[in-house]
Amino acid sequence: MVKLKGFQKLTLTDEALEKWLSELQIRKPQAVLVSLQDALGRVLAEDLIAQEALPRFDKSAMDGYALKSADTFGASQSKPVTFQLTENQELAGKQAKQIWTGNPIPKGADAVVMLENTKRQYEKLEVWSQLPLNANISKMGEDIKKSDLVAKASIRLTPYQIGLAAALGYCQLKVSAKPKIGILATGNELAEVGTELSGNLIYDSNKIMISAVCRELGAETTDFGIAKDNIDEIVTKIKKILETQDAVITIGGTSVGGLDLVPDAVNKIGKPGVIVHGIALRPAMPTAVAVLSGKPVLILSGNPVAAIIGFEVFGRTMVSRLLGMTKTEPRPMLKTVLARRVAGVLGRKTYVRVRVALKDGEFIAEPVSAKGSGSISTMTQSNGFMIIPENREGVTEGETVIVHMFSSLEVDV
Amino acid sequence: MVKLKGFQKLTLTDEALEKWLSELQIRKPQAVLVSLQDALGRVLAEDLIAQEALPRFDKSAMDGYALKSADTFGASQSKPVTFQLTENQELAGKQAKQIWTGNPIPKGADAVVMLENTKRQYEKLEVWSQLPLNANISKMGEDIKKSDLVAKASIRLTPYQIGLAAALGYCQLKVSAKPKIGILATGNELAEVGTELSGNLIYDSNKIMISAVCRELGAETTDFGIAKDNIDEIVTKIKKILETQDAVITIGGTSVGGLDLVPDAVNKIGKPGVIVHGIALRPAMPTAVAVLSGKPVLILSGNPVAAIIGFEVFGRTMVSRLLGMTKTEPRPMLKTVLARRVAGVLGRKTYVRVRVALKDGEFIAEPVSAKGSGSISTMTQSNGFMIIPENREGVTEGETVIVHMFSSLEVDV
Repeated sequence: MVKLKGFQKLTLTDEALEKWLSELQIRKPQAVLVSLQDALGRVLAEDLIAQEALPRFDKSAMDGYALKSADTFGASQSKPVTFQLTENQELAGKQAKQIWTGNPIPKGADAVVMLENTKRQYEKLEVWSQLPLNANISKMGEDIKKSDLVAKASIRLTPYQIGLAAALGYCQLKVSAKPKIGILATGNELAEVGTELSGNLIYDSNKIMISAVCRELGAETTDFGIAKDNIDEIVTKIKKILETQDAVITIGGTSVGGLDLVPDAVNKIGKPGVIVHGIALRPAMPTAVAVLSGKPVLILSGNPVAAIIGFEVFGRTMVSRLLGMTKTEPRPMLKTVLARRVAGVLGRKTYVRVRVALKDGEFIAEPVSAKGSGSISTMTQSNGFMIIPENREGVTEGETVIVHMFSSLEVDV
Repeated sequence: MVKLKGFQKLTLTDEALEKWLSELQIRKPQAVLVSLQDALGRVLAEDLIAQEALPRFDKSAMDGYALKSADTFGASQSKPVTFQLTENQELAGKQAKQIWTGNPIPKGADAVVMLENTKRQYEKLEVWSQLPLNANISKMGEDIKKSDLVAKASIRLTPYQIGLAAALGYCQLKVSAKPKIGILATGNELAEVGTELSGNLIYDSNKIMISAVCRELGAETTDFGIAKDNIDEIVTKIKKILETQDAVITIGGTSVGGLDLVPDAVNKIGKPGVIVHGIALRPAMPTAVAVLSGKPVLILSGNPVAAIIGFEVFGRTMVSRLLGMTKTEPRPMLKTVLARRVAGVLGRKTYVRVRVALKDGEFIAEPVSAKGSGSISTMTQSNGFMIIPENREGVTEGETVIVHMFSSLEVDV
């Protein structure tokens, strides 16, 4: 008799993740040198250290006149001090030189008086205020000192870090090489997108979707096609992926016709094989995590939403580690008010798809009803996940919940 | 006497944006056909209509047995109804066929009984429950009907929309062509990144940073180099950009040495030229917005943070429109508690850089103190903006504020 659907024992999500990570031997990713342009969105592979100071020299923080602060002693609107204007590179006593924001401070000057506190008449300048040393000067290194740590390894580079690196004279940055992930779909019912459908076949949409999620995180994916529901074919294809890729993701075949085709194939290939199969995670219960040749093998359900949630939990963590991050990169989060009650199941973690909108200054999360968890359209109608933890039977209407956003907020203007 | 820093009149941010948009003649962007792989993150150019139904056929929502619901009339655990198992494509009366989740419903069947409610003995099946019509069947078109609108034009494509398009049999999608943006820096003090610095030059980090922000939004940028602080050179270079690009961004020269070099150059080129110069926006007051040949010209300050905020307000809107969006694409937002008081200025909109962290379940926004608004490091130390509106003198400690996130949340685990 075939093994029926349903697992003897479900492993808690965090426990499964921990077991998997401890069996994995993910090495520090290779570092590659890329131009600043190409560094956008990549993960920094080593600490970025300031190779010079910022500002590079003492500069004016205002439009005004550079002068010696001591020369302004006692100056006020009723008792101005008069300076001689000069164009020289170096100032002598009681000389002033016009200066604009960002200009270097000329030699002999140690303060800048704002335009508003002066009156110019031909080559004379009346100064109406007494200035302390370094007034209106941005000192060299005030922003960043030479050898300062300006960005930590393993952060994802934003345009602003790239701008800062440019200001510091970098024109290339060392980033983590893109992890190579091979993706295999399994299932007799699947046909490749772009082919003609016949009979009761359906398009394999999961592979292209999971590939996109991987690429969004900065991985490089290779499509290893579709395997039939046949252990030997699955074994051969997974072995092939392991030859060249850093990680394997399979989709489908976790409980086909009551058989665990892919987990069985993985266990046939080598040790330690499947670490956990059957997770207390809704709707991704049939997910399995495995290790072959020290590399992560993520076995996702063929149900599209289960595949998405299985990836969200295990795949995001895997890609983050392959990129050299010590933590799983979080999605943008949002505190919202739940629009109506959602049921969970005690002892299982539940991912609920919600649509968050900003209404009258309040973020409201509307659960997207899931008639059939297999339908991707519930994902395209939502923009975030709410997570019901294992110790809750559900979340009530009006409760404040954190939503993990995967798509743009709906803004009511 | 040169015109001094400070504008006769500052225009309110929203008013400036409105004036600019009403003068612009942004056409619907060209649509380009790309593969599903390449569609990730692009903006959909036309409504996506389901070319078939999902599911494509009636399928089982459970592992179990397909049968005719009427044959289960009166069945219960104490009074089971016995069926004959078959492997045929079509069922006769009182026949049942084993079926797995996702399998098509065989002819003659109109319900699926779950494994748990049956007992199999050789070729006989005892059914313990009475089933209504369509029990445990996902009906054809239940998820999506043929001709349904599945994604609206102008949305940014996520992996899930790509998955849905694949399931519907699409292998290409029409997306908006990438807007072409030419970027010019101006300033005698600037040197290109990658060159040797001499004297009091500084690296032009703004151009590469603003280019990255544009590319992050899906634009294609071209670097038009650095112009000296010379009106004729600036005129020539902006004209050159207009020949091939959809939009112009200049950085610097908005109030150099008291002169409005770039705004003056733009006005020399043609009508309407500068629409607004001087915005009640901190720290991006010297920003100007202009229109030449119907195309947007965004004139940013040379101060890095002012350039960033000027782009954030005007540039994001510009790129969103060029991509065919009717609204400015929002950043991920977050309701946070402000860690300490921040001052604003009545009558001006103020962008405050904050660092948001999740601490004990609470999102706390810590203002990043800005010693010198010119320092990009305040951007790399923060992960979001808080906006103080024109009618507020400041925001108090402990107040709830919305933060617009531009970088990963700091999660305290």
